[in-house]
Amino acid sequence: MIVLQLIGIGTGNPAHLTGEAIAALNAADLILVPRKENAPDLADLREAICAAVLTRPVPIIAFDMPVRAGEDYVQAVHAWHDAIAGAWRAAAATHLPRGGKVALLVWGDPSLYDSTLRIAARLPDVSVRMVPGITSVQALTAAHAIPLNPLAGAVTITTGRLLRSHGWPPEADTVVVMLDGGCAFETLDPVGITIWWGAYLGMPQQALDQGPLAEAGPRIAATRAALRARQGWIMDIYLLRKAPQ
Amino acid sequence: MIVLQLIGIGTGNPAHLTGEAIAALNAADLILVPRKENAPDLADLREAICAAVLTRPVPIIAFDMPVRAGEDYVQAVHAWHDAIAGAWRAAAATHLPRGGKVALLVWGDPSLYDSTLRIAARLPDVSVRMVPGITSVQALTAAHAIPLNPLAGAVTITTGRLLRSHGWPPEADTVVVMLDGGCAFETLDPVGITIWWGAYLGMPQQALDQGPLAEAGPRIAATRAALRARQGWIMDIYLLRKAPQ
Ligand SMILES: C[S@@+](CC[C@H](N)C(=O)[O-])C[C@H]1O[C@@H](n2cnc3c(N)ncnc32)[C@H](O)[C@@H]1O
Ligand SMILES: C[S@@+](CC[C@H](N)C(=O)[O-])C[C@H]1O[C@@H](n2cnc3c(N)ncnc32)[C@H](O)[C@@H]1O
Repeated sequence: MIVLQLIGIGTGNPAHLTGEAIAALNAADLILVPRKENAPDLADLREAICAAVLTRPVPIIAFDMPVRAGEDYVQAVHAWHDAIAGAWRAAAATHLPRGGKVALLVWGDPSLYDSTLRIAARLPDVSVRMVPGITSVQALTAAHAIPLNPLAGAVTITTGRLLRSHGWPPEADTVVVMLDGGCAFETLDPVGITIWWGAYLGMPQQALDQGPLAEAGPRIAATRAALRARQGWIMDIYLLRKAPQ
Repeated sequence: MIVLQLIGIGTGNPAHLTGEAIAALNAADLILVPRKENAPDLADLREAICAAVLTRPVPIIAFDMPVRAGEDYVQAVHAWHDAIAGAWRAAAATHLPRGGKVALLVWGDPSLYDSTLRIAARLPDVSVRMVPGITSVQALTAAHAIPLNPLAGAVTITTGRLLRSHGWPPEADTVVVMLDGGCAFETLDPVGITIWWGAYLGMPQQALDQGPLAEAGPRIAATRAALRARQGWIMDIYLLRKAPQ
């Protein structure tokens, strides 16, 4: 019997780890880490976190991360998730033939735009436990010291892809955009919108900007391109708020 | 000069505290705790957290929490926030006449349906720092081991009041409802909606339920009333998902 612990580790700052996350890592029989990621710093971070918080020698096993491929987005994602589930199953069979607790360090919180849970659902004989972690949404609001929701109002969390294809969500006054490969905010009429933007939140290279979208938007697009070129990768998130009409 | 640290403490489980939160509490010159709350267990929890994580003797000062009163909701909230800001200012003036770091333990994350930041904005001579904490949204998804967003989809976080007055947010397929004094889900047509509900999340008395809204809704309403009667108070949150059409 395998128990899979999906442990939220926050968004780059090792001090984001909760006591619950540290306890779960120490209680594991095996920690699985992906061998290859787009952002090499992030793989190092996972190892640094383990080194910093483990108080007993838990085996840390790297597995080769399958590559996503295919034309149709949703179909390609499904095939990729199958392959990752297979890699986990193989690693657990090799290293924990009699079962035990497997821990996975999940970026941010395991419930937010993360596939780990959907991949785990492909392993019906595995029981899943989730440990919450600080999300990039919270890292953004904390860095700017701003509220997420307007007073008594609602918040929509969405993706760059959806903002581009569907426009501003109807009736929303606050929108958080994640997983934006470009600058989807450029597709909006900026009048009356304020943006709060953050990249590499919680990490030493953290970058912040904010202001009326008409002025801050082009500045952020330029900063983003420069940072991406310099680092080789970027992770960013932003909050857009419409002034009450 | 006063630095006000708004420290997210998670939603009832002391193990939700992050390393950053523990460091910020220990770095404080003064910890301010409200003397009276609707839920007495929560005041005790704040003191238990301080006792558990402080490694140096930081003075903990209780202040009398002003009471909200008035007909108009928004106006009453504004007046109440003014009064709380006054109470903080008075406590800081008395106990830190030459300035220093004041810490406030904020339930969940300080950015999510919490007034602390808006109250702090009433003190222009104070500089604010926010430390993120695990939200009740994450406590809910972790307890049920479910994703927050549908694959590649958006999420709306809203209040019981808004769900009642505005109905299901247009185009949304996942809606998280907080601050619901009753069971606003009862105002929806339940067909095709699944609910995941949690009360007292992270606390010893945690209660969970889930299922198709048509069946689980009445059951949750009954459980909620019974728990509320037994405990004298309740804090609950739920996630509603519409099956893809
Ligand atoms: C695959 S999702 C994972 C989200 C993660 N589970 C969380 O709780 O934040 C990746 C997206 O999260 C956001 N993100 C994650 N970490 C970030 C960081 N440190 N700084 C800025 N954005 C971040 C970006 O929008 C990125 O495209
Ligand atoms: C004033 S808001 C504070 C939210 C908090 N800042 C957070 O990050 O979760 C209070 C609402 O949060 C939700 N909530 C907070 N803690 C909870 C808990 N332990 N269990 C269930 N719901 C909770 C409930 O919907 C409650 O009405």
